[in-house]
Amino acid sequence: MDELTRSIPRSVWYGWGDPAEAPPLSAGAWSALASWGVARGPQTPPVALEAVELPPIALGDKEVAALREVVGSDHVHTDRRSRVEHAGGKSYPDLWRLRHGDGSEAPDVIVEPADAAEVQRLLEVCAERRIAVVPFGGGTSVVGGVGGVEARGGAVEGGDTGEQRCAGVVAVDLRRLDQLLHVDPVARLATFQPGLRGPDIERALEPHGLTLGHFPQSHQEATLGGYVATRSAGQASTGYGRIDDNVLGVRLATPRGELVLGGRSPASAAGPRLLDLVVGSEGALGIITEATLRVAPRPAAKRYAAWLLPSFHAGSEALRGLAQEVGPGLLPDVCRLSDEEETRVNLALAGRSGAVLRRYGRVRGLEEPALVVLVWEGTDSAALKHRQSVCERVLGRDGGRRLPARVARAWEKGRFAGPYLRDELMGRRILVDTLETATTWDRLGPLHAAVGSAIRSSLADGGRGVVVMCHVSHVYATGASLYFTFVAGESADPLAQWRAVKSAATEAIVAGGGTITHHHGVGVDHAPWLGAEIGDLGLDVLRAIKTELDPTGILNPGKLIPRR
Amino acid sequence: MDELTRSIPRSVWYGWGDPAEAPPLSAGAWSALASWGVARGPQTPPVALEAVELPPIALGDKEVAALREVVGSDHVHTDRRSRVEHAGGKSYPDLWRLRHGDGSEAPDVIVEPADAAEVQRLLEVCAERRIAVVPFGGGTSVVGGVGGVEARGGAVEGGDTGEQRCAGVVAVDLRRLDQLLHVDPVARLATFQPGLRGPDIERALEPHGLTLGHFPQSHQEATLGGYVATRSAGQASTGYGRIDDNVLGVRLATPRGELVLGGRSPASAAGPRLLDLVVGSEGALGIITEATLRVAPRPAAKRYAAWLLPSFHAGSEALRGLAQEVGPGLLPDVCRLSDEEETRVNLALAGRSGAVLRRYGRVRGLEEPALVVLVWEGTDSAALKHRQSVCERVLGRDGGRRLPARVARAWEKGRFAGPYLRDELMGRRILVDTLETATTWDRLGPLHAAVGSAIRSSLADGGRGVVVMCHVSHVYATGASLYFTFVAGESADPLAQWRAVKSAATEAIVAGGGTITHHHGVGVDHAPWLGAEIGDLGLDVLRAIKTELDPTGILNPGKLIPRR
Repeated sequence: MDELTRSIPRSVWYGWGDPAEAPPLSAGAWSALASWGVARGPQTPPVALEAVELPPIALGDKEVAALREVVGSDHVHTDRRSRVEHAGGKSYPDLWRLRHGDGSEAPDVIVEPADAAEVQRLLEVCAERRIAVVPFGGGTSVVGGVGGVEARGGAVEGGDTGEQRCAGVVAVDLRRLDQLLHVDPVARLATFQPGLRGPDIERALEPHGLTLGHFPQSHQEATLGGYVATRSAGQASTGYGRIDDNVLGVRLATPRGELVLGGRSPASAAGPRLLDLVVGSEGALGIITEATLRVAPRPAAKRYAAWLLPSFHAGSEALRGLAQEVGPGLLPDVCRLSDEEETRVNLALAGRSGAVLRRYGRVRGLEEPALVVLVWEGTDSAALKHRQSVCERVLGRDGGRRLPARVARAWEKGRFAGPYLRDELMGRRILVDTLETATTWDRLGPLHAAVGSAIRSSLADGGRGVVVMCHVSHVYATGASLYFTFVAGESADPLAQWRAVKSAATEAIVAGGGTITHHHGVGVDHAPWLGAEIGDLGLDVLRAIKTELDPTGILNPGKLIPRR
Repeated sequence: MDELTRSIPRSVWYGWGDPAEAPPLSAGAWSALASWGVARGPQTPPVALEAVELPPIALGDKEVAALREVVGSDHVHTDRRSRVEHAGGKSYPDLWRLRHGDGSEAPDVIVEPADAAEVQRLLEVCAERRIAVVPFGGGTSVVGGVGGVEARGGAVEGGDTGEQRCAGVVAVDLRRLDQLLHVDPVARLATFQPGLRGPDIERALEPHGLTLGHFPQSHQEATLGGYVATRSAGQASTGYGRIDDNVLGVRLATPRGELVLGGRSPASAAGPRLLDLVVGSEGALGIITEATLRVAPRPAAKRYAAWLLPSFHAGSEALRGLAQEVGPGLLPDVCRLSDEEETRVNLALAGRSGAVLRRYGRVRGLEEPALVVLVWEGTDSAALKHRQSVCERVLGRDGGRRLPARVARAWEKGRFAGPYLRDELMGRRILVDTLETATTWDRLGPLHAAVGSAIRSSLADGGRGVVVMCHVSHVYATGASLYFTFVAGESADPLAQWRAVKSAATEAIVAGGGTITHHHGVGVDHAPWLGAEIGDLGLDVLRAIKTELDPTGILNPGKLIPRR
């Protein structure tokens, strides 16, 4: 696990991690992309840091002094680099803007509180002075969850300030709240501060023989607080559970004081579960200063398997079999199924060994197969073997063919490389993004087709070559997730091109009965469709909760809850 | 399953089900009780129906006419029998009051809407005329969830009416909304109306080869809507999951209109999960008119096991081993552990066969053993056998001894008899009640001791003989439930005696870090302690949500959310 979850530097301001560590895309990959009509543009490096245009700092000396009083002068930053580093998350539009010198999402000031008490005090100071607060963990939002533009737009409606504009925007960077506070080995619970990044979490739990088992693609940068605030799911969540399955308690700092929920019991009938309001609250209801989560024994052993199924449909029926017949406990911890196009692309990008696998499939009548990757983790090797054999029986019964396990290992090895590849593609004027949904098993096939087709038609405008691929990465008894990746040459106005494809895909998701987001969160990008998910009355309920906890509407304005 | 979940008549007004069907307590059981100092008082039958004192009907002809206009004259009742039948749930104090002629909890009027549209219309009429609404499903609340006294007290604070009193109280009986609306065999989901009672649910699912797997002790009377509204857990929830694990979507009628949540996806990151506000809302936020739940294949086979463990502590360590090492999927569906006292009582009440088991334990050095009962259900007998053998390995390793499986079958056979036995004890002037909590594994032992001792000291006042027994009925990776049953002779003022023991036990639960209720809900009885669970700010959030959905505070006033 160490190699997989090792720390990387905090991300460069215009992309992912340390660009020096980025694995380059092979010549073969470029020529494969070209063969699908996605041409490599000229290398266009991002503008220089000095060339990024930043909004003037709106906050006056008095406001900055008030913030300094809370966290100390050393932990208040207004310098260019700090502002640019906090000018958005890692979505395509956020990065595109920065690469092209648009720093409009930058906050005025960055503060780094030391502890929960300072976070609480900060909220009081900001509420009093109507300063918008953007909580900032790893800064890996891909839905516009940490930008400043919407925050700058003023207090949200539903706050009692009506349309009054905020005095400025403060990013509250939680990196100093980075402690594992408590481990209970009997109940297998751990209490964390929010600022631990993914690898920090695993490093802190390792001496206790425990793991959180939470590995989203953003793992190396994302933080525990971010996991909870965005209702995250990781690549092994089919086994270890989503973050919402594993949170037992939280402390939330709000302008109204501290909300302390849960932690007493694994389950309760004491009314509505308010904890489920904090999970997924995306900084709009408060700042998570502590969370207690279920942890698991660190796996001593892993087993890998890869299969080719005759089609995406056959593959999803096999996964349904795993989820419904084999069920929790025996299911693989990682359970992924690529559709025909993603399988074709992956095999093409794998070069010679991919070609061998393709031939292997063809010989066995699998013309357009769908690749399944499975990983079981555990402490007892006999139990692992049993799990694998029960699962493979299901995969084998509908024409599936087993591939060498190294195919699954290769997936695991490269699983955190995606964000680096995106940087390289963006540097070559290629639009690349991902989006995700989930739905019930009966709607999975039609939704897969409808969303794929919406993405394709939107991007293919003007005869542009497009690659749209999809995989299932999380399975449940009642349904599964769909994760789309799409690639196309940039148009003359890439942000408009992106908005069009995002909108087309999300409309197709809504029409097809999927959720607007399975694990990316809402942020700014999905907010216009939240009403389609929870109804106007649901939005009113959310606004009422926000008004109760954040009466002046300073918390992450414009995120999660759409403006009226 | 048929025998276990067969329908029984709707309960008699002063007790459970059909008194003619009540299994009588054996002479041996009475003499065992006597030996513990709990003497059988003289048989005191309930007062006659005609002798129950009812509050005058507060609603005027105009209001009743308005209700008739919505549901039709045939479905509006103001007769004595109807009012008494809706005068509370099945808690000890609710039943005690009725047995002694106190009908103060009765509503003024009972209405029986035909469908969701009529429910919606009723709420509008009642909101307009400030009539308090008590939703009524099976009427099995044991926490004062369906009485009229608190409702009569006026609109809740937090409603915009301040302290204005309500015009009267209407019980909305949901018995006519009794349809299974839709079954999706692919996603294994079923959509129900709220008024189906437990056996109706199973009967409706049977032709589809499905089960809800939800069997609380109230199963034969309780309704689907009640399960959802009270965040219920059943006896097989260790395997099938709590109701909150299984609800995927709801429709909630509220005075502000309909709230439609979920149903699109097994999981989502689309912000706070508002569905978890409806689950456990106890009629205070709206009336559930539809719910979509995960269902499971009807088990074709069952396996039973019973074990004696050396002590409650050893037993709970074994259950922790099951929950943490064996885990979901392999765990028994039913998993119960009685403490030493409950084991002793159960063996004593079992007569000759109990004595044999006790001797069997003694010979093997188990002086004060703890009984474990396990049931595995499934469709694949090889998988069942595997599950059993994996689990029994854990039970056997710490000095446990296997008993004949018929002990577990005997538990199952009698599992819905509890409420009948209570009626018989109450008729003999014996106070009998149950209460429950849950906590994390590290706190389970101390909490068990502290709550037991609080109950004992409260009831033992004046040298009274007391039986206090407890079992674990639900296990989770991070903790377990505790379910206490207590029996003592009634004092001169049994309601005061009950209030004292309830309060002592709940204070001990709060102090010991347990939840105030694991599956009974909040109602009126637990409301004073909800603030201890979610804090004052948590209460404010609940009140804000209520004010948003129920601006005039007509919905089940005084339940769930404590008055300020």
